[in-house]
Amino acid sequence: MDAMPVTSAAEETLDPSDWADVQILSHRIVDDAVAYLRDVRQRPVWQEMPGDVKDFFTASLPQSPTPLADIYGDVVDKVMPYPMGNIHPRFWSWYMGSSNFTGALGDFLAAIQGSNLGGGNHAAALMDSQVVDWCKQMTGMSASASGTLVSGGSMANIIGLAVARNTKAGIDVREHGVAAIEKPLRFYGSDQIHSCHRKGMEALGLGNKALRRIASDASLRIDIQALRAAIAEDRAAGFKPACIIGNAGTVNTGAIDDLRALAKLAHEEDLWFHVDGCIGALIAIAPQNAHRVAGLEWADSIALDPHKWLHAPFEAGCALVRDASAHRKTFAVTPEYLESTPRGLASGQWLHDYGLQTSRGFKALKVWMALREHGVEKFGRLIDQNIAQGHYLASLIEAEPALELTAPTSINIVCFRYRAGGLDGERAKALNTEIMLRLQEDGIAAISDTTVQGRHCLRVAINNHRTRREDLELLVSETVRLGNEIASA
Amino acid sequence: MDAMPVTSAAEETLDPSDWADVQILSHRIVDDAVAYLRDVRQRPVWQEMPGDVKDFFTASLPQSPTPLADIYGDVVDKVMPYPMGNIHPRFWSWYMGSSNFTGALGDFLAAIQGSNLGGGNHAAALMDSQVVDWCKQMTGMSASASGTLVSGGSMANIIGLAVARNTKAGIDVREHGVAAIEKPLRFYGSDQIHSCHRKGMEALGLGNKALRRIASDASLRIDIQALRAAIAEDRAAGFKPACIIGNAGTVNTGAIDDLRALAKLAHEEDLWFHVDGCIGALIAIAPQNAHRVAGLEWADSIALDPHKWLHAPFEAGCALVRDASAHRKTFAVTPEYLESTPRGLASGQWLHDYGLQTSRGFKALKVWMALREHGVEKFGRLIDQNIAQGHYLASLIEAEPALELTAPTSINIVCFRYRAGGLDGERAKALNTEIMLRLQEDGIAAISDTTVQGRHCLRVAINNHRTRREDLELLVSETVRLGNEIASA
Ligand SMILES: Cc1ncc(COP(=O)(O)O)c(C=O)c1O
Ligand SMILES: Cc1ncc(COP(=O)(O)O)c(C=O)c1O
Repeated sequence: MDAMPVTSAAEETLDPSDWADVQILSHRIVDDAVAYLRDVRQRPVWQEMPGDVKDFFTASLPQSPTPLADIYGDVVDKVMPYPMGNIHPRFWSWYMGSSNFTGALGDFLAAIQGSNLGGGNHAAALMDSQVVDWCKQMTGMSASASGTLVSGGSMANIIGLAVARNTKAGIDVREHGVAAIEKPLRFYGSDQIHSCHRKGMEALGLGNKALRRIASDASLRIDIQALRAAIAEDRAAGFKPACIIGNAGTVNTGAIDDLRALAKLAHEEDLWFHVDGCIGALIAIAPQNAHRVAGLEWADSIALDPHKWLHAPFEAGCALVRDASAHRKTFAVTPEYLESTPRGLASGQWLHDYGLQTSRGFKALKVWMALREHGVEKFGRLIDQNIAQGHYLASLIEAEPALELTAPTSINIVCFRYRAGGLDGERAKALNTEIMLRLQEDGIAAISDTTVQGRHCLRVAINNHRTRREDLELLVSETVRLGNEIASA
Repeated sequence: MDAMPVTSAAEETLDPSDWADVQILSHRIVDDAVAYLRDVRQRPVWQEMPGDVKDFFTASLPQSPTPLADIYGDVVDKVMPYPMGNIHPRFWSWYMGSSNFTGALGDFLAAIQGSNLGGGNHAAALMDSQVVDWCKQMTGMSASASGTLVSGGSMANIIGLAVARNTKAGIDVREHGVAAIEKPLRFYGSDQIHSCHRKGMEALGLGNKALRRIASDASLRIDIQALRAAIAEDRAAGFKPACIIGNAGTVNTGAIDDLRALAKLAHEEDLWFHVDGCIGALIAIAPQNAHRVAGLEWADSIALDPHKWLHAPFEAGCALVRDASAHRKTFAVTPEYLESTPRGLASGQWLHDYGLQTSRGFKALKVWMALREHGVEKFGRLIDQNIAQGHYLASLIEAEPALELTAPTSINIVCFRYRAGGLDGERAKALNTEIMLRLQEDGIAAISDTTVQGRHCLRVAINNHRTRREDLELLVSETVRLGNEIASA
C-alpha cells in the first residue's frame, strides 16, 4: 500500500446542501411535466432546432458548478421543445410507444431507490421477476419459462438467438467458440425480418450469411414451402438448420407469419423456434385480434417490447425462454466476487445470469405501475384500438383517389403513397418523401417511409395511446393537400 | 386487407382523466423522495423483507385498474423500505454508485419527453453525443473517437471486444462469421479480469478459451513478461494474438495494470488495446490520483461506467473507440425502413449504428444534469475522496490487531479479514462470512466478500458519495465486535 494523505476537510457529497430548495424546484418540474403531456396535442409533433439550440449542445465538459435551477431552465428552453415527437398523438414514424406519465414516475422512483437489479435479496429484484412472470402470462408462455427484462427488442431477440445457438451447437460453444461447431448452423427468417437479427447473427459470430432470408408472399408473410425447401437444401449441403425466426408483426407492414405452421415445422425438423414479437406478441392480450398470433405460445423463445405496446418509457424489452435451464446455461457465470450467501443481501437470485449485463436498472417498476393502474384488459383494448385505427386509416386511403395502399394492412401499420399520376419510381419517391418532410416540418404529423417489394411508400405505424380517428382524417387530408401542392409546383 | 369493425366508442388513452389528481400525487411523491434520500443515513443499509412483502410480489397479472394513489401506497410500503442499499452511506458491496437526486429528475424528464435515442434530428440526440464527447474529454480519448452510451460496463466492454474482433479478424467477419477466420484469434487479460469479458467472448462466438488469463503479480497487476511470453507462444502455435484487455481497476482489489506498458506492447505486437475502465477510467479526472491511470489515453477502446463513479442512476455505461470508422463498421446497418432524409426528423445521425440496440433511452440527461450541476472538478474530488477513504480504512485495519489486510490497497477497494486466530481456511471463511451477514442483517453496513490468490476475504468497495470516515470507523469497530462475539460462541 502506498502512502496517501488523508485529507482532513469535511467530506463532500452530491446531495444538495439545501434539500428544501431542491424540493421546490422539483415541484415546478412536476407541474411543468403535467402541463407538457396534458397539452402535447396543442404543440407541433416535431420542429427543427434553431442554430443556437444546436450550438448549445456543442459546449465542452463543464468544469465548475451551475445552479440546478439554471440547468433546468436550459432543459426547458433547449430540450423539451425539441422532442423526437413520439409522445404526440400524430407521431407514427418507425415503431415505438408514446410513454406515459405513470411510467415516468416509475423511472423517478427507481432512480431514487437506486437499486441494482443484477440480483440479490431486495424488493426490486422480486418485482423484476414478477414482471417477467406477467410477460409470460400475457403471451401464453409456460409458467416454468425464464425471462429477463432488457434494453429493448433488439437485445431480447439477441438473447433468444444466443440461447438457440448454444442449444443447437452440439458442443460447448461457450468454451470453444463458434469455429468448433462441426456443421455450420443456419437460421431462417423471412425477407421482412428486422435488422436487429442481422446485428445479432453478426455479434454472435455466426455471420450474416448464416441467416437465410426466405421469400415472403403477397401478404408479406414467410413462404412456408420455400422455408421447408431451404431447410432440406441446407441439410443436404452439410449445414445444420438450427433456428426459425417467426415474425409476430413485421416492421415494414405488420405482417404476422403463420406461427402455428412455423412451430410445427420447427418441431418436425428439430429446430429452435424463436418469435420476434416486438411489435405483435402483446396482441395476445387484445380480445379482437389475439387470434392473429395463435401459435405464439409454442415458441421456444419470444422477444417482446414493453416500450412499444405497453408504452413504457424507454428502455424496456423482454426475452422469454421456455427452457429456463437452457437460458441460464447460456449466460450464467459465478465469479468469486459474486458468490451467493445463504442469508442476507446476496441470498437472492442473480438476475444477471440471464443476459449480457451485470448491473441492471429497475425497469420493472414503470411497467408494473402502469399495468396495475390500467389493468391488462385496458392495454388489450388499446391494442385493439390501434389496430382498428390502422384499418380505419386504410379505409380512408382506399376512399381517396389521390392515394393508394401499397401493401395489405394486417394490424396497425399502413403503407400507402400519393399516386403522383404517371410519375416513375424515383420521381414518385421524391414526391412522397417531400410530402413526408413537409408533414414533419409543418408539425402536422410524423410518418416515415420504407420500401416494400421494391416499391417506395409512406408508412404509418399507429402504436400510440393518444391517437384519435380525427388525427388520421387530418393526415389524409393534409397528405393530399401537400401532394397536390408539391406536384403542381 | 381483412374487414375490421371500426369501433365507434370514443378512444381510450393512458393519460389520466384528471391531470390535477396526478399532479397532487406527484407532489407527494417528490416530497417523499426528498425525505427518503435526506434521511437515508438514519435507516438500516439493508433489511430482510418480511414474508408478506415477499408474497406480495407473487401476485399474478392485474386484470382491472387500481387507483394510482393505492399503487403508490404499495410502493411506499413494499418497495422503498427494502432497497438493495447502495444509496446508503455504509454500502460498499460489489461495485456500484449511489445514485443522486438530480439524476432521478433527469430520468423523470427523459421519460416525460419520451424520445428515442436510436437517432434522428432532435435535442436529446445532440445531448447524447455531447455526453459521449464529455466522456472522451474526461478520459483523454482523442476528439475524433466515437462512442456510445449503453446499459452498463458489461455492454461497454462487449462493444470494445466486438470492434477488436472485427478489426483484427482479417476477413469480413460480419458476413462470414468467426468460423471463417483463418487463424483463431486470441485475447489476453489478467486473471483478475471481470466476468463480463468471459460473457463477451462467449457471446461473440470466440469462446471463453480464446481469452487467455495471464497471471497477476503480488499487487494483482498483470505480469507483463508473462503476457509477452503468452503472445509469442500463441503466435508460434498458429493463433492470431488480437487484443489485450487492460484493467484500470480490478473488481477484486482495484489493481490498475501498467497501462503504458500494455499500450506499448500492444503497439509493438499490432494488437488492439482495450481498457476496462469501468472502475478506474474516471480516475483520470481526480487530481491526486490521475497518475495511476497514465496510458489510458493510448487505448484503442475504453469501457467506462457513469453509473459507478459519476453516480448516475442505473443504467449508464459508455464505450469509446479511437477509430470511429472501425466502430461504425462493426455495427451499422441501414435497412429500408431506417433511411436518412436530407431534412426533418430522420436527418440526424443514427446513434444505433454504434452498438447492439435499435431503440435507445435518453440516458444522457441524468449524466449531463449532474455533471453541469457539480462540475467535473467536484466529481474528481469525490473520486480522490473515496480513494483517500480506502486508504484511511486500510490504515484503521492495519492498526487493529484483530484484523488484517489480505491484499494491497491501491484505490478505493479494501480486502481484509478478521484474523480468527488459528482457524483454517474453511472455518475462517465461515466466520468472516458470518460477520458479513450480521453486518447486513443488523443494518450496519453492506460489504461483500471475494477470494484473492486463493484466500477468502471481506471486501469493501467505497464508491459512495455519502460515505464519511466515521462510517469506516464504525465498520472496523463493529467488525471486531461481531468477530469476537461469533468466535467466542
Ligand atoms: C419487428 C421488430 N423487431 C425488433 C425491433 C427492435 O426493437 P427495439 O427498437 O426495442 O430494439 C423492432 C423495432 O421497431 C421491430 O419492429
Ligand atoms: C472492472 C469491472 N468491469 C466491468 C464491470 C461491469 O460493469 P456493469 O455492472 O456496469 O455492467 C464491473 C462491475 O462492477 C467492473 O467492476
